[in-house]
Amino acid sequence: MINEEYKAMLGGKSVIRELAEYATARGKEIGYDNVFDYSLGNPSVPAPASFTAAMTDLYAHGDPVALHGYSPSLGNPEFKQAVADYLNRKFAMAYTANHIFPTTGAAGALSHAFRAVTKPDDEIVTFAPYFPEYGPYTAGAGLKLTVVPADTTAWQIDFAAFEQALNPNVTAVLINTPNNPSGAVYSAATLEKLASILTAKQAEYGHDIFLISDEPYREILFDGGKQPYPSTFYDNTLSCYSWSKSLSLPGERIGYVAVNPKATDADLLVPMMGQISRGTGHNCPASSIQLGVAKVLDETSDLSVYETNMNLLYDALTSIGFDVVRPGGTFYIFPKALEENATAFCMKAKEYDLILVPSESFGVPGYFRMAYCIDTDKVKRSIPALERFAHEVYGK
Amino acid sequence: MINEEYKAMLGGKSVIRELAEYATARGKEIGYDNVFDYSLGNPSVPAPASFTAAMTDLYAHGDPVALHGYSPSLGNPEFKQAVADYLNRKFAMAYTANHIFPTTGAAGALSHAFRAVTKPDDEIVTFAPYFPEYGPYTAGAGLKLTVVPADTTAWQIDFAAFEQALNPNVTAVLINTPNNPSGAVYSAATLEKLASILTAKQAEYGHDIFLISDEPYREILFDGGKQPYPSTFYDNTLSCYSWSKSLSLPGERIGYVAVNPKATDADLLVPMMGQISRGTGHNCPASSIQLGVAKVLDETSDLSVYETNMNLLYDALTSIGFDVVRPGGTFYIFPKALEENATAFCMKAKEYDLILVPSESFGVPGYFRMAYCIDTDKVKRSIPALERFAHEVYGK
Repeated sequence: MINEEYKAMLGGKSVIRELAEYATARGKEIGYDNVFDYSLGNPSVPAPASFTAAMTDLYAHGDPVALHGYSPSLGNPEFKQAVADYLNRKFAMAYTANHIFPTTGAAGALSHAFRAVTKPDDEIVTFAPYFPEYGPYTAGAGLKLTVVPADTTAWQIDFAAFEQALNPNVTAVLINTPNNPSGAVYSAATLEKLASILTAKQAEYGHDIFLISDEPYREILFDGGKQPYPSTFYDNTLSCYSWSKSLSLPGERIGYVAVNPKATDADLLVPMMGQISRGTGHNCPASSIQLGVAKVLDETSDLSVYETNMNLLYDALTSIGFDVVRPGGTFYIFPKALEENATAFCMKAKEYDLILVPSESFGVPGYFRMAYCIDTDKVKRSIPALERFAHEVYGK
Repeated sequence: MINEEYKAMLGGKSVIRELAEYATARGKEIGYDNVFDYSLGNPSVPAPASFTAAMTDLYAHGDPVALHGYSPSLGNPEFKQAVADYLNRKFAMAYTANHIFPTTGAAGALSHAFRAVTKPDDEIVTFAPYFPEYGPYTAGAGLKLTVVPADTTAWQIDFAAFEQALNPNVTAVLINTPNNPSGAVYSAATLEKLASILTAKQAEYGHDIFLISDEPYREILFDGGKQPYPSTFYDNTLSCYSWSKSLSLPGERIGYVAVNPKATDADLLVPMMGQISRGTGHNCPASSIQLGVAKVLDETSDLSVYETNMNLLYDALTSIGFDVVRPGGTFYIFPKALEENATAFCMKAKEYDLILVPSESFGVPGYFRMAYCIDTDKVKRSIPALERFAHEVYGK
């Protein structure tokens, strides 16, 4: 019998997807090269050649039965060990293979993290602006998502608003740094303060509050900056990662949850995630991709194009007169729209073949997101269009 | 806050997994070659060389950005079209690409099928003997699983018991043919009668009852037999498939749901599955594997070893005096144990280094499963052990 709830969801199309579809259609009219499509966050640089070489080698010399065989239900042990070693090297953690749960990308990681440390009807808190899929992701785990209003000055955390949002029903807090859509990198000061509030509230409420840290943009950092590793600030942290961006492998669906070894029940959480998989139909990332990624953990795609694009756009936007916080990482920038209604602003931009995403779905009104994971040449060609749009429509 | 429900699940270890772990440990003592391990259903033959060639070609000549890029949320269109064409050719169906939802193996397929055509607290009916993971799979979708007692004469369907189990809360029926663990292939007569009962009950209850057909063993057939395609018998059918067995790619997690074009809301069901994915963290099978599998849809691994092994075991078991139905397909055989308590029987078999799985977890007492996806040489060497065991312990 058809599930009416999912059927009803078909009405509500994602704004981002609608804009991307419009961009594709418009591209058929005027050539996609002439559409300044800033809608979608798809990596535009290839996977590193070393990954292709690793996979080619596996196909040439690997035993197909082992290469394509079932992973153990908690993931390939060598892969888990390699990930633990990498994280320990990089962030001075003390993970063992047993703290790493390989997943089908960050979506799979979050799905397991939510279910492991909350129960249905619990409250989970996140911070505006936030990735719109957090809505269905948390709803799927039966959670109530509470959104803390944005710190619009620097896209860090409005701690007064955060403390107001906390209550004993909150069992998890969800952060995303470097942030989609703002490009902000949470500072050590932000993470310290967050940790100290959570520690105090755990004591006050008499129960754990887990920090679920969504980190797919961890390696895309600008101006020589660093992303402090959230798990080093707070023991009850589950770090959710994906190689979608750092290795440009979004379609291969590979990531993990890393359980802080000092978290409550740290040694049980990965086996519990194995139980969660049985109910959701998850079953480890593709076996061959686990083996390939294990060989290139210290590498990334050439991510420099994102910084090049960011600099071009940041300079152009500020010189036009946009109010914009300089991104510390990711491939997004999140300027203030030139009128209060961001959707109206983005609709007008379409007339200039600028595909910009209004901020309402990110939980903050009046801004827009540009995903600049596109050719630098197109970024350059888009700047005159941005200038004309701001001048002709808004007198800038 | 730790989810106590999943934590409690850690206690209950799967019998199959426990036996497999025992087999591995015992292998360390006496050499794994000397352990007659019939516990696990992992394909023992390699993927076809054509698959390796297709993947090698994709890595050598494909554009990495396209090869590893996000699939559209409902799957790669060319892959979906290729699957639809294949099924239409093979089973005279009229699928379009829009009726195919690519999933991470059969587990992913079932997870979406359940949620699309049932709602939490509905009842779903399956038939003993059944794959034990149907328990957690259906529980994950919030369903009550009702198991119809087995037809032990031929492992088809006990229709009297089925009709007794039906009631207005039943919104889906789950079948698995060729069947794990019995090796039975549902006949056209069985599928026709099943369809006619479901059609009558739909009318009586005034609501749809979907048939969810789990078909990962579809191509492993013996004695020149055929598996009638369940969807051709009943319009409201969702066919769930995986290439785990036919192409020996279990670790790559690739399969699909195929929605019968004449099903209720047939054109909405795949988009609904896209919505379901957002809540479970599913996101299409690995992009490169979709492209590779699309090139070898008409092929299979060399599956003949399974028939060779089945013949050896069937002949040995019957000549020893076991009561056993000849499998029509799969790589399982499901003889009657030589005492009422199948678990006691299998524990005694361990003394002969025979790793057999007792039938209780498959929903029928008194039988045992042998998964003969192992080397033929080991099957041959196991027969004297089987003979000694039956003779020394049971006087056969």
